[in-house]
Amino acid sequence: MAISESVQKALAGSSMIRKMFEEGLQLKKQYGSDKVFDFSLGNPDVDPPKEFQDTLVKLAAKNEKGSHGYMANAGYPFVRDALAKKINREQGVQTDASHVVMAAGAAAGLNAVFKAICNPGDEIIVPRPYFVEYRAYAANHQIKLVEADTLENFDLDIKAIGNALNEKTAAVLVNSPNNPTGKVYSAEALTSLAKIIKEHNSKGRVVYLISDEPYREIAYGIDVPPFLSCYDNSIVVSSYSKNLSLPGERIGYIAVNPAISDKDNLINGIVYCLRVLGFVNAPALMQRIVAELTEAAVDIDIYAKRRDAFMKVLDKAGIQYAIPEGAFYLFCKVPETGKSDTEFADHLKKHLILGVPGSAFGKPGWLRFAYCVDEKTIAASADAFMQAVESWK
Amino acid sequence: MAISESVQKALAGSSMIRKMFEEGLQLKKQYGSDKVFDFSLGNPDVDPPKEFQDTLVKLAAKNEKGSHGYMANAGYPFVRDALAKKINREQGVQTDASHVVMAAGAAAGLNAVFKAICNPGDEIIVPRPYFVEYRAYAANHQIKLVEADTLENFDLDIKAIGNALNEKTAAVLVNSPNNPTGKVYSAEALTSLAKIIKEHNSKGRVVYLISDEPYREIAYGIDVPPFLSCYDNSIVVSSYSKNLSLPGERIGYIAVNPAISDKDNLINGIVYCLRVLGFVNAPALMQRIVAELTEAAVDIDIYAKRRDAFMKVLDKAGIQYAIPEGAFYLFCKVPETGKSDTEFADHLKKHLILGVPGSAFGKPGWLRFAYCVDEKTIAASADAFMQAVESWK
Repeated sequence: MAISESVQKALAGSSMIRKMFEEGLQLKKQYGSDKVFDFSLGNPDVDPPKEFQDTLVKLAAKNEKGSHGYMANAGYPFVRDALAKKINREQGVQTDASHVVMAAGAAAGLNAVFKAICNPGDEIIVPRPYFVEYRAYAANHQIKLVEADTLENFDLDIKAIGNALNEKTAAVLVNSPNNPTGKVYSAEALTSLAKIIKEHNSKGRVVYLISDEPYREIAYGIDVPPFLSCYDNSIVVSSYSKNLSLPGERIGYIAVNPAISDKDNLINGIVYCLRVLGFVNAPALMQRIVAELTEAAVDIDIYAKRRDAFMKVLDKAGIQYAIPEGAFYLFCKVPETGKSDTEFADHLKKHLILGVPGSAFGKPGWLRFAYCVDEKTIAASADAFMQAVESWK
Repeated sequence: MAISESVQKALAGSSMIRKMFEEGLQLKKQYGSDKVFDFSLGNPDVDPPKEFQDTLVKLAAKNEKGSHGYMANAGYPFVRDALAKKINREQGVQTDASHVVMAAGAAAGLNAVFKAICNPGDEIIVPRPYFVEYRAYAANHQIKLVEADTLENFDLDIKAIGNALNEKTAAVLVNSPNNPTGKVYSAEALTSLAKIIKEHNSKGRVVYLISDEPYREIAYGIDVPPFLSCYDNSIVVSSYSKNLSLPGERIGYIAVNPAISDKDNLINGIVYCLRVLGFVNAPALMQRIVAELTEAAVDIDIYAKRRDAFMKVLDKAGIQYAIPEGAFYLFCKVPETGKSDTEFADHLKKHLILGVPGSAFGKPGWLRFAYCVDEKTIAASADAFMQAVESWK
């Protein structure tokens, strides 16, 4: 055996997106990258805001003694303090530095939180469709990811979540604005969710509510409601990958609700998990930078225009989709022919259009397009989409 | 339950170093930080080399489009290519970019490698004493860490490792220059180790040999021998935390031996593990920086002078120690009184000296001092050490 059985199995299983990615590269080589409409990857291409560049140059030049060395594993106190102010503005609760832990991106944060709050065999409930990596994050810590259906408009199905709650449930995980659907959960939906969890809690174990919200600041004419204020036993995990377009730098944070009764123990547990999982601390320079950028964001208008352009393209081709309220994904229904989402993705590929089958997100019969590409490319894909739909039987 | 049982237990168990750290802070508050001789933490305080600062400023100003975005999870191809050249110089084998994976520090690299090569219940053998976090890294992936004794001079005890090898063994992990002993394993010792593992392999499962070597470039008048050339089925994990003094930036790498038969599968497995553990990729900007600094290092002479100064202090106080050949730790024997290393650490604290009990590294009866402090502080600790030893009964 060269590698572990579970990793070997995962490599075989994760071949769908990998295959898509590799075939995409092949197509680009063959036809030229400007001829391929690659909507497969959620890799933010909008430039970081000017403030980021200015702060980077300023802090690089500063050359402060020890500024690339270790700090407390939870992050610099002054950075945690600066973020607490941003979190308070967004979350409707009063946090301070002691409630914030810097993490090397949301993926790091979720892994640390999962490990910190779950015993092996515990369950985390997630509305379906969901971000494809959650299943692997849960598996890392021997947690069972339990899928709950959403409503037809991809809003939370409170009853479905209620039915999934049981004595093994450690947490309910929501992601809003949602990847892959672009749905933003309303304050009403979150309040109903909190209510049903509280009812369940009264029977015994207190369930955590976790929000993975790296897209919070990318929403289109709609307010993303505060999350922590909905439910006491709650945790937010977020990053600067989308709102500052820094996914390669791995910088994010975890915030716990000040109302959690045993919050110091929880924070210590999360910091311990970040340490022993090998994160140790979030990258030092990026911590210092984001502390100065709590009010900055990429130009959301660029994404909004792309969203509108993409909706036009799909309308013209007669493809149904959920109107995205946030994030940068369009979740589309496979036109009905009795064939699968994977077959439709293969069919689109013949027209040099790349998207990810909904099966990868737990939702067969759908397809995800990421609009992390130029508006012109989106507009230029219109003919290819029309031809693809016409020849799809 | 607010947090997982195993994390709760770990928090209680890891209290030794945490307690030391907190008491250290308390002492510094009480007596002034210049009055406390804090040798507890291995936090490199020597400045990064000038080339680092120059490259940081240059790349910050460059503001290249997409330079903070995602790249392939394994890292930028040009960075992996640059590192392959450094690795070839150090390791006596011919690697190229395909054998190198960028990782967010050695702790990230070890976790990804452990997960990639081990099934739950597998064993990894490590010579004792060993870096305190290995046990937690192994536990993350349900791996049993098996300790093998070292010789009296802390060199590898080949027979002890041979006795520990069994059908559950996935890997032997060595750390040279060693934390906490400062030992550098000779080419002869590594060759003997390879020989005994090869004999074991002939009975069935092929065991990996892993070298955790972030201190490779910090050695005192001694060559740290190449590692990969000793044994085909071998993996190096390293970082820029020590040789460039960038521990807060979390940048390192994994290199696999080109002679590994199934190396592409192994690399894919490691990259998958980095991804799903939440690292995703090593921080983008730091990747680009270290690619330009393959020949740079901190001023080792500073550490060498501190080592000499510290040995003088201990000689004067009559404390026995292993002469460090590399890294920045002195591993000292607790003067014999029948009392424990923890009690000696407590006793030293009364003299405002902070060190970590050997028990934390699997070696009771010893104590680790880190010389990541100014040479003057080391020299100034002489009286405190003498008084401490005189009053230790």
